[in-house]
Amino acid sequence: MGLGEGVPLLLSFAWLLLGLHADSISAGRSTYIVHMDKTFMPKAFASHDLWYSSIVDSINPVGPTSSDSRHSKPGIVYTYDNAFHGFSVVLSQDELEAVKKTPGLVSAYSDRSVTIDTTHTTDFLSLNPVTGLWPASEYGEDVIVGVIDSGVWPESLSFRDDGMTEVPLKWKGTCEVGQEFNSSLCNLKLIGARYFNKGVIAANPNITVSMNSARDTFGHGTHTSSTAAGNYVEGASFFGYASGIARGVAPRARVAMYKVLWDEGRSASDVLAGMDQAVADGVDVISISMGFDDVPLYEDPIAIAAFGAMEKGVLVSSSAGNEGPRLGRLHNGIPWVLTVAAGSIDRWFAGTLTLGNELTITGWSMFPARADVVNERLIYNKTIAACNSTQLLPTAPYSSGIIICDNTWPFFEQIDIIAKSNFVAGIFISDNPEIYESSLFSFPGVVINLKDAQEVIDYALTSGVQPRAHIKFQQTLVGTKPAPAVASYTSRGPSPSYPGILKPDIMAPGTNVIASWIPDGYTAQIGSNINLASDFNVASGTSMACPHASGIAALLKGAHPEWSPAAIRSAMMTTANPFDNTHNLVKDIGQNFEIATPLAMGAGQVDPNGALDPGLIYDATSQDYVNLLCSMNFTQNQILTITRSNSYPCSNPSADLNYPSFIALYSNKTMGILVQKFQRTVTNVGNGATTYTVEVAAPKGTVVIVSPDTLVFGQKYEKQSYSLTIHYSGGKNGTVAFGSIVWAEVNGKHTVRSPIVVSPLVVVW
Amino acid sequence: MGLGEGVPLLLSFAWLLLGLHADSISAGRSTYIVHMDKTFMPKAFASHDLWYSSIVDSINPVGPTSSDSRHSKPGIVYTYDNAFHGFSVVLSQDELEAVKKTPGLVSAYSDRSVTIDTTHTTDFLSLNPVTGLWPASEYGEDVIVGVIDSGVWPESLSFRDDGMTEVPLKWKGTCEVGQEFNSSLCNLKLIGARYFNKGVIAANPNITVSMNSARDTFGHGTHTSSTAAGNYVEGASFFGYASGIARGVAPRARVAMYKVLWDEGRSASDVLAGMDQAVADGVDVISISMGFDDVPLYEDPIAIAAFGAMEKGVLVSSSAGNEGPRLGRLHNGIPWVLTVAAGSIDRWFAGTLTLGNELTITGWSMFPARADVVNERLIYNKTIAACNSTQLLPTAPYSSGIIICDNTWPFFEQIDIIAKSNFVAGIFISDNPEIYESSLFSFPGVVINLKDAQEVIDYALTSGVQPRAHIKFQQTLVGTKPAPAVASYTSRGPSPSYPGILKPDIMAPGTNVIASWIPDGYTAQIGSNINLASDFNVASGTSMACPHASGIAALLKGAHPEWSPAAIRSAMMTTANPFDNTHNLVKDIGQNFEIATPLAMGAGQVDPNGALDPGLIYDATSQDYVNLLCSMNFTQNQILTITRSNSYPCSNPSADLNYPSFIALYSNKTMGILVQKFQRTVTNVGNGATTYTVEVAAPKGTVVIVSPDTLVFGQKYEKQSYSLTIHYSGGKNGTVAFGSIVWAEVNGKHTVRSPIVVSPLVVVW
Repeated sequence: MGLGEGVPLLLSFAWLLLGLHADSISAGRSTYIVHMDKTFMPKAFASHDLWYSSIVDSINPVGPTSSDSRHSKPGIVYTYDNAFHGFSVVLSQDELEAVKKTPGLVSAYSDRSVTIDTTHTTDFLSLNPVTGLWPASEYGEDVIVGVIDSGVWPESLSFRDDGMTEVPLKWKGTCEVGQEFNSSLCNLKLIGARYFNKGVIAANPNITVSMNSARDTFGHGTHTSSTAAGNYVEGASFFGYASGIARGVAPRARVAMYKVLWDEGRSASDVLAGMDQAVADGVDVISISMGFDDVPLYEDPIAIAAFGAMEKGVLVSSSAGNEGPRLGRLHNGIPWVLTVAAGSIDRWFAGTLTLGNELTITGWSMFPARADVVNERLIYNKTIAACNSTQLLPTAPYSSGIIICDNTWPFFEQIDIIAKSNFVAGIFISDNPEIYESSLFSFPGVVINLKDAQEVIDYALTSGVQPRAHIKFQQTLVGTKPAPAVASYTSRGPSPSYPGILKPDIMAPGTNVIASWIPDGYTAQIGSNINLASDFNVASGTSMACPHASGIAALLKGAHPEWSPAAIRSAMMTTANPFDNTHNLVKDIGQNFEIATPLAMGAGQVDPNGALDPGLIYDATSQDYVNLLCSMNFTQNQILTITRSNSYPCSNPSADLNYPSFIALYSNKTMGILVQKFQRTVTNVGNGATTYTVEVAAPKGTVVIVSPDTLVFGQKYEKQSYSLTIHYSGGKNGTVAFGSIVWAEVNGKHTVRSPIVVSPLVVVW
Repeated sequence: MGLGEGVPLLLSFAWLLLGLHADSISAGRSTYIVHMDKTFMPKAFASHDLWYSSIVDSINPVGPTSSDSRHSKPGIVYTYDNAFHGFSVVLSQDELEAVKKTPGLVSAYSDRSVTIDTTHTTDFLSLNPVTGLWPASEYGEDVIVGVIDSGVWPESLSFRDDGMTEVPLKWKGTCEVGQEFNSSLCNLKLIGARYFNKGVIAANPNITVSMNSARDTFGHGTHTSSTAAGNYVEGASFFGYASGIARGVAPRARVAMYKVLWDEGRSASDVLAGMDQAVADGVDVISISMGFDDVPLYEDPIAIAAFGAMEKGVLVSSSAGNEGPRLGRLHNGIPWVLTVAAGSIDRWFAGTLTLGNELTITGWSMFPARADVVNERLIYNKTIAACNSTQLLPTAPYSSGIIICDNTWPFFEQIDIIAKSNFVAGIFISDNPEIYESSLFSFPGVVINLKDAQEVIDYALTSGVQPRAHIKFQQTLVGTKPAPAVASYTSRGPSPSYPGILKPDIMAPGTNVIASWIPDGYTAQIGSNINLASDFNVASGTSMACPHASGIAALLKGAHPEWSPAAIRSAMMTTANPFDNTHNLVKDIGQNFEIATPLAMGAGQVDPNGALDPGLIYDATSQDYVNLLCSMNFTQNQILTITRSNSYPCSNPSADLNYPSFIALYSNKTMGILVQKFQRTVTNVGNGATTYTVEVAAPKGTVVIVSPDTLVFGQKYEKQSYSLTIHYSGGKNGTVAFGSIVWAEVNGKHTVRSPIVVSPLVVVW
């Protein structure tokens, strides 16, 4: 065969790879993804691309016969050689059967039904089935998450046990029988459920508990537990927003519910009992989305119960609270728990406004139905544009149409007022429209920013013809920027109960999180008197951030069963991301989008895949925490309340806990000058010998000295120590200065980052 | 092995078959359906049941290990030996893999995701993938349905071409470019789209056509065309009602849209042009859900165009109109078309009312959202119970709760009034609550019947504690009885344009039919000013019945390409079902549920699978219709307007068309005495020689004589003739008498039924 014959072959390849996609689709073909075992690749092929092409090229076109243009060859769409080996290709059913006979073919499946992820946060956190924490932990299969909350709706699809294996043998819990709750409601996913209300009843002996079982009548516990470890649910959505597949962060982990929140009250003793029982039952992680404000550690049931959990190797993950953005209002700032702040998600619930001049504006809307607002008259009238008076609106000279409301009045109040008018929709103006109470959007409308608003008003006032607009609802955008940002509501450190440890520890998604809800619960409203229910609810708060962290902790426990709670927390903190998806430092919505400080977000946004392999670990033992307690101004009994054992000596008190973050506090007494020295020990959990060098970003107004500046490890699990000294001579006026220390692996991939904060001492009580 | 050892084996079998289902499910198993090739069955097995049991028995239980109760064997659920060979069995994934190795296994798949059919009418009509018309016609794959309507929304999922093969070669149509409609919007499902508005523009030369293309801006054409031949769409619903998989009657047939209905007007000339073009393009069936009232045949564009269609072998299926229940208001009563009446479906859109005393009542509701009406106070107060005054309600002494409204006022007006109150829901009373305008249910509520209402009122008035109730929405029930019933709105015969042929011909589902809609169209309402859109709409009318018949005609054309339009119509009529699902004669909702006459429903409810194999056919040629026309009191030019050809001789005029039904008309002139003789010829389309004998159910007041009473056929396609004479001496007061003639096959399964009607002559114009 001469060169002359070779040329058409090459051309034919190019034609195959580029020219045929659309044509092939039209011939009754569709796209398949084919996984190949590369060890089967014949040596004759120089590359996988050539092998795959030859496979496809060898197929006789099957289905299409009716015209010349349809005698086409199947076309390769992509070849893959990283995440997996194989290719995607446009084939008819018969051609697929031919391809399936190829030696080395692992699997082939259709490329249809790509769905948006409802619980998009797992995507946002880069959890994926190919690499990282999900496969490394088998999705948390052997891990039990105990959730201390308002109970659970066991029939929720998030708690079906499809695909779940047998319950881990270590499980000693039970499915407690109660009102509308029999033991058969537990399964391989929801492995246990108990309820604790002796404390509530003791406080109110005459009350009747309205749902005396682990059944959730609030929705909160169903939401948090499905966020942490809910099973996969197809077809989930919140009234058309965020529609797709829902799943928990650890979709194969087990859920055990401990109901301690009651319609009739909440009692510390019930919380204590629930946490204690969870530890006794054998949970691996406790997730607790609640906290006690303004209590010292020795009176905080979570601090007390969490100490016992920590002793047994159980990590307690807790919410920082929703008292932001003021400093020092955080709860659960307990040195032996993980304290989680809330951030935003790169998702936007949209209404799309299209004007008659074809300008399209993406606003914010959560109106819970597919309102039909098409080609409606657009009305901007200064007399009524405040939209703050129901009196004014009925006398308005228009009987329908879309009214534009000025930003002189809160838009969620304007929505209520417009709902009582004859208008069919409203346009509201705000630069920060994302509202945290999803049920407020009770009338069709869209919130647009000030810049867009000017264009809309200009069009409404100056359009020669009658101004017209459409609004499209139930739209969900993902990948919005910047994200994450610190939520304004998330409570800030320093921790009132012990400011000497930097809290919160990390940030996780907490704003507009979708998860399962009780089916009879109120989740949205239309007009003033129509309440709507949904199997899924969009909710916001550190309550929603906490179970994200809990799920990640569960996955880490699955991947590293030998890690202590402190090690898991350290891995999450030292790998957390201080940058957002614009590659800039994370901003704080509560501080007008200024750069967020560690008092708002701890070490940063949690990075599950990073935490899988942190390189170094800051570990801590029970005795280390006792030494910290002994350094506090507590009585022996106060300490004993927490430690519950006299066997811990108090002979070595130390405020310098081996924590993966640094906080130095100044007060008026320190006169703006502060020197504080920290001692730290890190354990090498990477593979074998390695060396790390330090990089310091000193907080403004400080000099930070680290010694030594290089840590050399001869083997895995070896420990090395260093000291860090902060010399601060900054302002006395309450400024927070922050920076970081990073231990970077030489010729390696690990970077181990800790935040450093210099903060005024905030005394709360 | 002795008998003693055999007994446990048998016991073990029983245990296997009966005892294990629930237990196995709980052990992480699920149900699979296994198809077997019975030719692989070893001769040792006396029956397939024993073979299947041995297969399952040979599996070592895999997954379950942790407790004794879980060391269970997989359990057979069903064995199958009719529709297919195989069994269903509860297995773990590993056990499934073991079963899959069995020789003779054809396929095994999961028994999950059973969904209700959204377009439930195909189920109601007994169309199924196993037997009958669907498989016999390959779901209409080679058939083209031309729809004359308001255009189509080409992006509707019903018009995706997944699974469609190449366009039939006979197709000569096109995808006409127009406003917001380019030719790439057609595909293997929507194979053509054209638009016709020269007539509308000629009538209004100064208008601007707002959507100058085949794109639908109304919804009607999208609904009818997707009903006839829409592709499968998963996840369809109308605001949570009728949720499931949507599909057309002929899900693999092709759609060609001819838009002739315009927002700007409707012109006969455009209808004519559209139908003419459809025939020229090569459609097999024309579906036209519109009609011209009060016009003679020679001025009726549908009659004129349908004649040409009939000549080319194209069946025209048309709607009878929505002018019922008065007699004689039917349109499209054209002898050479199929005229379709509308009936109800065995489906109920429900709201479930549960009282505090646990009484549960299934009412009617189409409130288009999941209203959250839980544990609300129930209010019955005679002062306001008429619910007919917005004035009264705001002064009511209750600020929320569920109000019970008396049936002294129409409930759809009460809904409007209650929507303006502070109540959260309403209970309305009606014995026939099914409303045909699905968008009327604009406020949460439920319509209950009089009997149930008394119990609810009693509870509300006499309950010792405060009366309470829940309402659950978005419920869909199927299998409701009696169904079908003739819809009150469906237009009745006799046909004003030619009463001598009994019209309508058949009945098909027309009430509350779900099908695709334009995405921007108004389909439901909440409160007074919130309009909602949906991709699917529930609509009622003969417009919805017609495309059901068109789809069935398309399937018949696919199964019997050689059949003439008259043969297809005959097959549909002579196999139609006069009984409802209670095995009683179909009732007429428009006549207080009295037995329906053929003037309301023609031969009865269309039966697609019956029509596949009708036994005998009443055929008719173009010349037969010309002979009929020549018998009418028409001028030569009037006849020529219809036939459009001088080549048809008028030498043999005859009013006795070979039609599969019989109507005798009396007038004041006939003085209540009437003798009418009909001549009919039937063609044997069964397999080979056969004999039929006659069974007559004579209408009240008549003697019916059929001669001969036995028809003997020597071979397939042989023709035999008979005469039928009606002697009527009934009342003069306008009563309609009806009966039937059935030709029943001797030792065979075919019954060939024709309705007989004696009717007063209704003269309309």
